[in-house]
Amino acid sequence: MRPYLAQAEHAMEWCRKLAAMSEEPGVTTRTFLSAPMHEVHAALGAWMERLGMRANVDAAGNLRAVYAGAGGDARRLVIGSHLDTVPRAGAFDGVLGVVLGLELIEALAGRRLPFAIEVIGFSEEEGVRFGVPFIGSRALLGSVDPELLARRDLSGVSVRDAIRAFGLDPARISEAALGDGAFAYFELHIEQGPVLDSLDQPVGIVAAIAGQSRIDVVFEGESNHAGATPMKLRRDALAGAAEWISSVEREAYGNDGLVATVGRLAVEPGATNIIPGTARLSLDVRHAEDDVRVQAVRDLMGVAREVAARRGLRVSFDDQFDQTATPMSPGLVEKLERAVAAAGYPVQKMVSGPGHDAMILAGVTDVAMLFVRSPGGVSHSPQEAVLAPDVAAAIDVGLRFLSECEANCA
Amino acid sequence: MRPYLAQAEHAMEWCRKLAAMSEEPGVTTRTFLSAPMHEVHAALGAWMERLGMRANVDAAGNLRAVYAGAGGDARRLVIGSHLDTVPRAGAFDGVLGVVLGLELIEALAGRRLPFAIEVIGFSEEEGVRFGVPFIGSRALLGSVDPELLARRDLSGVSVRDAIRAFGLDPARISEAALGDGAFAYFELHIEQGPVLDSLDQPVGIVAAIAGQSRIDVVFEGESNHAGATPMKLRRDALAGAAEWISSVEREAYGNDGLVATVGRLAVEPGATNIIPGTARLSLDVRHAEDDVRVQAVRDLMGVAREVAARRGLRVSFDDQFDQTATPMSPGLVEKLERAVAAAGYPVQKMVSGPGHDAMILAGVTDVAMLFVRSPGGVSHSPQEAVLAPDVAAAIDVGLRFLSECEANCA
Repeated sequence: MRPYLAQAEHAMEWCRKLAAMSEEPGVTTRTFLSAPMHEVHAALGAWMERLGMRANVDAAGNLRAVYAGAGGDARRLVIGSHLDTVPRAGAFDGVLGVVLGLELIEALAGRRLPFAIEVIGFSEEEGVRFGVPFIGSRALLGSVDPELLARRDLSGVSVRDAIRAFGLDPARISEAALGDGAFAYFELHIEQGPVLDSLDQPVGIVAAIAGQSRIDVVFEGESNHAGATPMKLRRDALAGAAEWISSVEREAYGNDGLVATVGRLAVEPGATNIIPGTARLSLDVRHAEDDVRVQAVRDLMGVAREVAARRGLRVSFDDQFDQTATPMSPGLVEKLERAVAAAGYPVQKMVSGPGHDAMILAGVTDVAMLFVRSPGGVSHSPQEAVLAPDVAAAIDVGLRFLSECEANCA
Repeated sequence: MRPYLAQAEHAMEWCRKLAAMSEEPGVTTRTFLSAPMHEVHAALGAWMERLGMRANVDAAGNLRAVYAGAGGDARRLVIGSHLDTVPRAGAFDGVLGVVLGLELIEALAGRRLPFAIEVIGFSEEEGVRFGVPFIGSRALLGSVDPELLARRDLSGVSVRDAIRAFGLDPARISEAALGDGAFAYFELHIEQGPVLDSLDQPVGIVAAIAGQSRIDVVFEGESNHAGATPMKLRRDALAGAAEWISSVEREAYGNDGLVATVGRLAVEPGATNIIPGTARLSLDVRHAEDDVRVQAVRDLMGVAREVAARRGLRVSFDDQFDQTATPMSPGLVEKLERAVAAAGYPVQKMVSGPGHDAMILAGVTDVAMLFVRSPGGVSHSPQEAVLAPDVAAAIDVGLRFLSECEANCA
């Protein structure tokens, strides 16, 4: 019997319980500051209080609680991940990392370390509601872009309004800053990809997070009657967009390690018998090397302009997000390597395609991440899963990582 | 000075006035049985009453009124078109034909013809709300498909519910049947295409309406994380749909006179960082020859299956509408030819790409249509226009067409 299997089952039960707190019945959809986030805060907050931690929600909507250290809270290790989800999500993306943070403290059974541990459940990582990801962890940098606070969702509600509607005060958002005491940020997260599964390994150490670019692209032509307008006289925005989407796919296939995705596409006016006048798309491009990513984006913008010019369309671009690749902190990566080896698992280092809160926290402290295998590589889907022995391995490694920190913080 | 220019300006003013009656402020959107349709009925009904006609709304929501003939109402000429619009429509599509019907009666100045004239403003032609066009004119065939009445819009409201919510009784829909007295249906409509404009002619006589097929197509793959899923392991529904849209365009270019359009496309889940799991599209294919159209649809379904198989996607098809090409009635076309020539305009016969209510009415009576030039070929757009001298020509031809009927109905 592996150690920590009971704790792993307990953590997975928690994740499934939280997955039922959703904006849509029967599926898990929980975007930034949506109503069910109150339920999640109440449930996890009660667990935190049982562990002797005082739970509070900062002005960016992040759930936070500190487990005191033997010598007070001056030096802190932060363990966290995010509590928001994509639409029709799985039960483990983000949430598992917060639950495992509490599971590690539960396993300490009241023992105090030479440093405090702050567990954070970030309010926003996926970028679904406002098209900009990491709103939760960005607040920990100490200043929030006023443009971001003014940004509106599809219903016209601004970030500032949403914070107020959740019962928080946007004027106090600067108080969410991480401050000086935190010496490291540690995040446990499902891989969300097929690498560990293909290697049959339970956990992996993140060496770096790939950089990513997100751009909104709009093709504009002329809406007109689908029956009366000969093909040669059309300026069909969707036909242009479709041609470009095929180019996006080809560009990614042509660059090793590059992924490029059009995940959103809306057509206007959007009737069967009208030639589309406008097509609005999102582009998401990622690579571990910034040069490769930046060049791919440049290529794709050029192709879009060429397609538009040839078809008599206009095309415009709006940069939503640009994140350079983020290496994890070498000292913490070494500690994780020792922890994994001590727990008896193979030491597997890897690049993360998805962005994570650790990427943002790298701006204010040292960061480290441990991935847990995603069976089938499935994530962002109700079929997303974890295996209990893998979660047990993560708890084992996590506790050994705390010991490594203990040895080095003494 | 051309005759009927004042009447033309009057008719155009009416169209612009009705265009303000909309579901969305600042644009014209008036779908089947939407609230602003009540306003349109009240305004046109008042005009009908001033002309001594009794206005009523049948159980399918069609506005109807009879101008009595000298010998009673036993024999009737029906003049009509539709009052619903596409989203963000122009002011003249459909509405102009109803307004011109009343303008012709106004020009009779109380004179009675040997037959009655029934003016009808159809409730539904565009197919926007329920995805099925011609719901209004279909009711005149005497029986309505119960499946159609059970069909639901995007809010889950059925056709039957919508009729009730508008204050009508769906059980009485069979009373909307045209009956035996009608000897012909005449429709005036904007061309909605560029043919008359390119020939610099004010009006054209429709010889036939092209057949059309409308099919809903769904590609299904697997939604997954856009950052973590290597290109080779993706089953991206939108990438497949995009490839197919390009094939639709190529198929149309390769068949003279064929038009093929994807006007709707919705992606699920629809987030920047998720590979699309589902793409739902509409396909609209039209041609004057049924064989050409049916073969094109068959080809495109074959291409969709091939694209889906190659990409590991599923594809499914749902036939929404299939209409064979409809020739206009030769006797009425001859009358229109004499009327156009007598008014001093060139006799231009043409095929209509768009479907029209006349296509449905052809199932119960003789039908004829006169097109009015669309400047720039623009329609289904706020830029849709007509020229006053062209509308005057249509009134002139319309009155001469009534005389032709008079001479032949005596």
